[in-house]
Amino acid sequence: MTSTDPEPEPEGTRPPPTRRPGGRTARIRTQVLDAVRAELGEHGFDGLTTDTVAARAGVHRTTVYRRWRDVGGLLADVLDAAGDDDWQPPDTGSLEGDLTALNEEIQTALTAQPPIVVALIAASFRSEQAAQAQQRLWEDRYARCETIVDRAVRRGALPPQTDARRLLIAATAPLYHQLVLLRTPPDPQLPGQAARTAALAAAAGAFVEPRSTDGA
Amino acid sequence: MTSTDPEPEPEGTRPPPTRRPGGRTARIRTQVLDAVRAELGEHGFDGLTTDTVAARAGVHRTTVYRRWRDVGGLLADVLDAAGDDDWQPPDTGSLEGDLTALNEEIQTALTAQPPIVVALIAASFRSEQAAQAQQRLWEDRYARCETIVDRAVRRGALPPQTDARRLLIAATAPLYHQLVLLRTPPDPQLPGQAARTAALAAAAGAFVEPRSTDGA
Repeated sequence: MTSTDPEPEPEGTRPPPTRRPGGRTARIRTQVLDAVRAELGEHGFDGLTTDTVAARAGVHRTTVYRRWRDVGGLLADVLDAAGDDDWQPPDTGSLEGDLTALNEEIQTALTAQPPIVVALIAASFRSEQAAQAQQRLWEDRYARCETIVDRAVRRGALPPQTDARRLLIAATAPLYHQLVLLRTPPDPQLPGQAARTAALAAAAGAFVEPRSTDGA
Repeated sequence: MTSTDPEPEPEGTRPPPTRRPGGRTARIRTQVLDAVRAELGEHGFDGLTTDTVAARAGVHRTTVYRRWRDVGGLLADVLDAAGDDDWQPPDTGSLEGDLTALNEEIQTALTAQPPIVVALIAASFRSEQAAQAQQRLWEDRYARCETIVDRAVRRGALPPQTDARRLLIAATAPLYHQLVLLRTPPDPQLPGQAARTAALAAAAGAFVEPRSTDGA
């Protein structure tokens, strides 16, 4: 799992400015990214400019321009910052329980007000830089979640050759599909139903590569 | 839905213009919607204006403005026109076969060049009118596909209380999730894998409401 940890360095070439964590650089980043989220939540992508973000953050516009360049750079940094945490997937003791708890977190995020997570997904259709950061974030989240499947295999609840990524996508995709694309209202049963579907399919061998029969 | 424009009336109150199907009105609609698709495929939502569409369609800009009002109206009509066909879901003789063939159609549409279907999905984040038309189109498509599940129930391959909509969403959601949101490259195995997952889960009773045990 590749985590985008503490400070692996966005600005590679120039000598790092006094980079005490919690120092001025970090404080400005926090202010600016908070401002991006707030603007996005209130006005969506169309209300977002480096100037409105600078004004809201209380920093000089050239600071924003120099460090983030444009709206795409700001959005990408919000997404990268979102992955820069200690989040671990739920551990409830069962595959279906873990997937249900995970889906509940996803449903909460996708239906939160203001709708920042959905606004970031929408923005990823507008900015290639945001799209790539969104992909990095999802990649990181799915990689962290693979432990859910590993644990189930170790418990003997799943065949060892289970493809963790496909299982996780089957479990979570209906949430994104219904809440982001089909725009159906949130349904308290949805997280559990999608989890149960994936767990039943997994137990029936849906995520074991068919080619693994070559020795049989 | 609040539309943003001056004239209060699309058409309702004034006498309808000579509305022979295949007549001038229909011909203009075809030209204009073709132009919307072409502009969308080439330049995406940001290149789309009523003026560029009128120019490309070879019709007067006031014609476009009077009939479709704005870009949202044009997109909504493209989506409504897409649902105005005789499309029927595949009928292969098995649930997994039907879902695989359906997913192959979806993967083809989502990966077509120019990427008009994905551009319409992206546009639905920009225009409330397009979002509602996109929802109508999906609602219509999922409703037509319910026959896939009905046939499987009649064949005795699925329990009679199977929730067709939930099954269809489970079968198709991974395609949208991977190709539109996660932006993974198209995978020739994806349609069949997602179909098989949903079919296995369905056979295991995943889409039968748990409350149906009340008599047991």
